[in-house]
Amino acid sequence: MRVLVLGGDGYLGWPTAVHLSDCGHTVGIADNFARRNYDQELGVESLVPIYPLHIRVGAWAELSGRQIDIFCGDITDAAFTRELISGFRPHAVVHFAEQRSAPYSMIDQAHAVYTQRNNVIGTLNLLFAIAEIDRDIHLVKLGTMGEYGTPNIDIEEGWLTVEHNGRRDRVLYPKRPGSFYHLSKVHDSHNIEFACRSWGLRATDLNQGIVYGHEIAATGADPRLATRFDHDAIFGTVLNRFIVQAVLDHPLTVYGSGQQTRGLIDIRDTVECIRLACVNPAAPGEFRVFNQMTEAMSIEEIAKTVTACYPGASEIEYLDNPRVEQESHYYNVKHSGLIDLGLQPHYLSDTLIDSLFAVVERHRDRADLAAMRPTINWRRPGR
Amino acid sequence: MRVLVLGGDGYLGWPTAVHLSDCGHTVGIADNFARRNYDQELGVESLVPIYPLHIRVGAWAELSGRQIDIFCGDITDAAFTRELISGFRPHAVVHFAEQRSAPYSMIDQAHAVYTQRNNVIGTLNLLFAIAEIDRDIHLVKLGTMGEYGTPNIDIEEGWLTVEHNGRRDRVLYPKRPGSFYHLSKVHDSHNIEFACRSWGLRATDLNQGIVYGHEIAATGADPRLATRFDHDAIFGTVLNRFIVQAVLDHPLTVYGSGQQTRGLIDIRDTVECIRLACVNPAAPGEFRVFNQMTEAMSIEEIAKTVTACYPGASEIEYLDNPRVEQESHYYNVKHSGLIDLGLQPHYLSDTLIDSLFAVVERHRDRADLAAMRPTINWRRPGR
Repeated sequence: MRVLVLGGDGYLGWPTAVHLSDCGHTVGIADNFARRNYDQELGVESLVPIYPLHIRVGAWAELSGRQIDIFCGDITDAAFTRELISGFRPHAVVHFAEQRSAPYSMIDQAHAVYTQRNNVIGTLNLLFAIAEIDRDIHLVKLGTMGEYGTPNIDIEEGWLTVEHNGRRDRVLYPKRPGSFYHLSKVHDSHNIEFACRSWGLRATDLNQGIVYGHEIAATGADPRLATRFDHDAIFGTVLNRFIVQAVLDHPLTVYGSGQQTRGLIDIRDTVECIRLACVNPAAPGEFRVFNQMTEAMSIEEIAKTVTACYPGASEIEYLDNPRVEQESHYYNVKHSGLIDLGLQPHYLSDTLIDSLFAVVERHRDRADLAAMRPTINWRRPGR
Repeated sequence: MRVLVLGGDGYLGWPTAVHLSDCGHTVGIADNFARRNYDQELGVESLVPIYPLHIRVGAWAELSGRQIDIFCGDITDAAFTRELISGFRPHAVVHFAEQRSAPYSMIDQAHAVYTQRNNVIGTLNLLFAIAEIDRDIHLVKLGTMGEYGTPNIDIEEGWLTVEHNGRRDRVLYPKRPGSFYHLSKVHDSHNIEFACRSWGLRATDLNQGIVYGHEIAATGADPRLATRFDHDAIFGTVLNRFIVQAVLDHPLTVYGSGQQTRGLIDIRDTVECIRLACVNPAAPGEFRVFNQMTEAMSIEEIAKTVTACYPGASEIEYLDNPRVEQESHYYNVKHSGLIDLGLQPHYLSDTLIDSLFAVVERHRDRADLAAMRPTINWRRPGR
């Protein structure tokens, strides 16, 4: 099948594109290189060196004999989006093309507005392009488990059957997101559900947990295929940051008590979940939601797992929590939809942590410990 | 108290500003005149002639001895919004400054994106300005009953206590909005709730039903104080349109079967609800929601009430429904919050319809019957 990966130059977009190509699909990548620009703005870099997109794509062609098309542009530009969809005519569009950092969205007014405008309008343009060009195109959209927050009831996969005063309805699962970024994804979900309901579009919303890891099978073969590995406090995900701190003999910085529980997923499972969603499309008119995570752990448990696996690692340092979030809460998430489609999860194991330690050790000279301290305070808007 | 009315030149913003001034509050109006521009774009006009804002404000000063300050600008401009709030230092901000037409938002991609960008970003800027200048400022935000859609369970006031698998939580009421406009209000509600939760802001979200009527006590005294009376298919609300059709001996155009039930409210109650919300502010950190409607009727019932009250009125014409909406549905809405604050509702009565007939008869030569036919099709995106 033909699959367009929007944001295909990013941390997960790139390995997803390679994985889909590796599995025999015809892949195109669209990107505006916003993610590389955030590095310039913030003065940080991927721990693992990454190559320009055309080098990556060339290396993949050299190694695999498979071509990936590149489309440079911004999906908040409606004309670009329309031409992209009508030119490539994908069967599925995998949509990673959003600003994905909660702290970045909380920097100040300008970053909050940028995040919501970028994410919501890009997705709206995409919905219109699909509706006007071919309603059969399956939208596979990346959401986040952070949309749900930490409700005191079980988290279902996107929809909830509610009984109230003796009557019953199936409704979108009520959300309590924790940042302007997470809110942008909630807005997207509502817009997409409406497009499915009104126009008969088919969409899958993948509410992803915190991703960890670096390599997938297909990108491990050549350093030119490496994806980014962010370790800064703004774009780095928590487990990747802990690995860097352990290797550099720096205390593992936990926000608050660390009792916050979150869904996790291995990067190898992420790319496979997306493939499974593509080859098993939602029905026409269906807004299908999967919780794309494989296990849940508290932040403190994650930190302790890392220190236990890395002899000589420093202790945990508990920082004042810069975020507004519940630290002690119920957390029980249903996530069987992707398993039912055939996902075989990798669990957070010593093996994985070992391989991540090796990646970090190789590039330890590039680590920026100062950039790992949180500087964005959820309670104090503006700088 | 000092109250800033954003969108204070519009259909409801203007009478709200006058009513608050009439009740002794110090009122400022901010407006970018977008509403007057939509008329230019669509080639339609208010049935009742309206005067420029500075004439309105001058006439009000002449009649009442009370000054209303005018601030011309656009709240999607963050610097304008910040200066507005820091300069006027209101106790309450009444926020009408949004694109408010569902059909307008469904015209095409550009109008959908305009609506969501305008509404969501304006509100975000306002939240940041309040948070940075004075968190005690009470935000009184206009939402819509259309955010809820027509769920098969009772509609509560913004929050719902859910029991699920033996556990319980209080969550934002799940929404199923019916247009990109209604979606923009859902996005706003989520953003505002987050600002209350994270920054301790105080906000009241008023989910308003379909407003009917034209005059309130304070604006009836002089034609220069008249507010707009829209009768076109894009900005005209249903009851106002029916009155025009009856007076012009034109069939009353009902969409679909007319069994759709909607919440209604008299314009005199709207302005009083807003006053009640202002003088009874939400608590710090509270996201308070009221359903601002006083009764529920089906569209067909509304049409029949109008024809029954106007001897010689034409019959009802049932048009293919241009919207995607359930025509036969459960509808039971809680709306006691504003009553508890002291609202004394006006119900849709012969008296009111009589007074509206007189308004329309006075201006019947200005009516544009052609503009009353729906042209925006919910199922066909783009023009």
